[in-house]
Amino acid sequence: MTDNAGASLEHILEAHRGRVDDALAEQLPLRRPEQLYEASRYILQAGGKRLRPTVLLLVAEAVTGTAPLSADYRAFPDLQSEPIDILSAAVGIEVIQSFTLIHDDIMDDDDLRRGVPAVHSEYDVETAILAGDTLYSKAFEFVLASEAPPARGVRATERLARTCTNICEGQAFDIEFESRDDVTVEEYLEMVELKTGVLYSAATTIPAILVGAADETVGALRRYGRSVGKAFQIQDDVLDLTTPSSELGKTRGSDLVENKQTLISVHARAQGVDVDALVDAEQLEAVEEATIDAAVEELEAAGSIEYARETAADLVESGKAELQVLPAGDARRALTSVADYLVDRSY
Amino acid sequence: MTDNAGASLEHILEAHRGRVDDALAEQLPLRRPEQLYEASRYILQAGGKRLRPTVLLLVAEAVTGTAPLSADYRAFPDLQSEPIDILSAAVGIEVIQSFTLIHDDIMDDDDLRRGVPAVHSEYDVETAILAGDTLYSKAFEFVLASEAPPARGVRATERLARTCTNICEGQAFDIEFESRDDVTVEEYLEMVELKTGVLYSAATTIPAILVGAADETVGALRRYGRSVGKAFQIQDDVLDLTTPSSELGKTRGSDLVENKQTLISVHARAQGVDVDALVDAEQLEAVEEATIDAAVEELEAAGSIEYARETAADLVESGKAELQVLPAGDARRALTSVADYLVDRSY
Repeated sequence: MTDNAGASLEHILEAHRGRVDDALAEQLPLRRPEQLYEASRYILQAGGKRLRPTVLLLVAEAVTGTAPLSADYRAFPDLQSEPIDILSAAVGIEVIQSFTLIHDDIMDDDDLRRGVPAVHSEYDVETAILAGDTLYSKAFEFVLASEAPPARGVRATERLARTCTNICEGQAFDIEFESRDDVTVEEYLEMVELKTGVLYSAATTIPAILVGAADETVGALRRYGRSVGKAFQIQDDVLDLTTPSSELGKTRGSDLVENKQTLISVHARAQGVDVDALVDAEQLEAVEEATIDAAVEELEAAGSIEYARETAADLVESGKAELQVLPAGDARRALTSVADYLVDRSY
Repeated sequence: MTDNAGASLEHILEAHRGRVDDALAEQLPLRRPEQLYEASRYILQAGGKRLRPTVLLLVAEAVTGTAPLSADYRAFPDLQSEPIDILSAAVGIEVIQSFTLIHDDIMDDDDLRRGVPAVHSEYDVETAILAGDTLYSKAFEFVLASEAPPARGVRATERLARTCTNICEGQAFDIEFESRDDVTVEEYLEMVELKTGVLYSAATTIPAILVGAADETVGALRRYGRSVGKAFQIQDDVLDLTTPSSELGKTRGSDLVENKQTLISVHARAQGVDVDALVDAEQLEAVEEATIDAAVEELEAAGSIEYARETAADLVESGKAELQVLPAGDARRALTSVADYLVDRSY
């Protein structure tokens, strides 16, 4: 990535992010019952990189050969130059992500999200369940509101529904794995694919389907999304151990304390490391930096952190290779850069 | 309703119920992750009258002039005699109902459902949230699996998505109303329409859309569903006060104890009855039958129970009148009888 392309990418990401922010406010107005919609908008308004909807818009641009930022995204020209509301579909993907965050935070008993109280902390568990449920159906409304030709609308909605089912399955495996010490690399990667990979994959396939891309293109974009989505999660696992708490926005080493399975812990265990003994603290607050440093040292010695980094990098490379199916141009270049960013980022 | 038609209706309802039970088991197999699917099937397997999916099948029969029980419901002839899997859509409606029960029971802290522990009691809150979320997306998968022509698939899915949003809005109003003593009849009826009416309405419009009915027919069926759905809820409110606990399957008068708004309490308050003073018990178990008897007597004196009964009966009559849009026959007759049953039933 040259400096030049980097600046351009920054600009594109920033512009799409602003566009998605505006569209979110527009599509989720504060209507009656007010507390429900207030709670539904709460996490969305607390920020977020809008990576998935941005990727969705970039894919629509790349597939149709539209220069980034040049179109009306409420009347985006599909491959037959017919207008579709691709921005509405982008909002749908962000809203699904938000629904999963709200419900996951209840399930994982996480009280902070994006630097503010989680919805169940700011309001209560009842409101948080209901806010998530509302965003869930809104996402389907938004994808359908793209007004693509019906056959594509059906395919896109099927993809969205299967994606949501898969995310639930992934979360169920994640919870199940917390009480197991014999999780294999294959099982872990399957969980990550379901929990994180498929939503990226939805963000890359749904726009392709909506603009009328050929099956071959949709398939390649599905693999791209799945690979970079998995890489994103594995990189998250690495950052949880290697980034100072201040930059991370949460306590470093929280995965070890909470006994969360990560590719690192699964690999280390297979190397004979007694992962459960690395950090012996009941409460996250009680863990000292030195304990985490020692744990990281042991995991590094076992080659586990390097293994995770390499796996993420390999996934990003194989994901990027899939992009060859797209016409060359700024949008394709941006999708390549986004993939690199996912593993290069430090927080 | 003559004895003859009654016997026939019983047979039709029983046959459709069995059909839906079988289809549920088929479409929700026990797959990995097993605990998730076990929990998702738990309430569905605990029973249920399958009223909504039965109504859905009856509407498909009535609109197409198909004699009840005479078709292959996996390849049901639409108005152009093309096969659609109407049974899959019926399962979708039951699954949505089940998702709302699971999440509502968490929100309302109800520990019993259909005579067995609620999902969050039998498993835990995390699993119950996730089981509901899984059924939510499965419902969309099932309606889309009907394989109707795409334009109809899109319309049916839009209807389902809006229905789910409305149900959340209705539940939010229901919770909000618990802490208010100035709820009007209009507000109450709006809440009931959202919380209960729209799902019946989805059960009557989705099959009409899928088989290719004219807009006029879809509109009439929407009004039929909405009216009988509201009547169903109001009748539930009446039964909560007038049916012995043993028949009810829950403690009689629970709405009064939990300070739930019902059409009865809203009406009584407008008549000057101090509804909050009728039952003064913190715990449902502590209320004596005599207290409930006295409360019912006061509500009867205010004309509130009669008012609710009459409102439900009026809704059923106006709902039934909408059925004139359908061709005469056994299915239409069955839909009329179902409407009557909703307000005639004693539990």
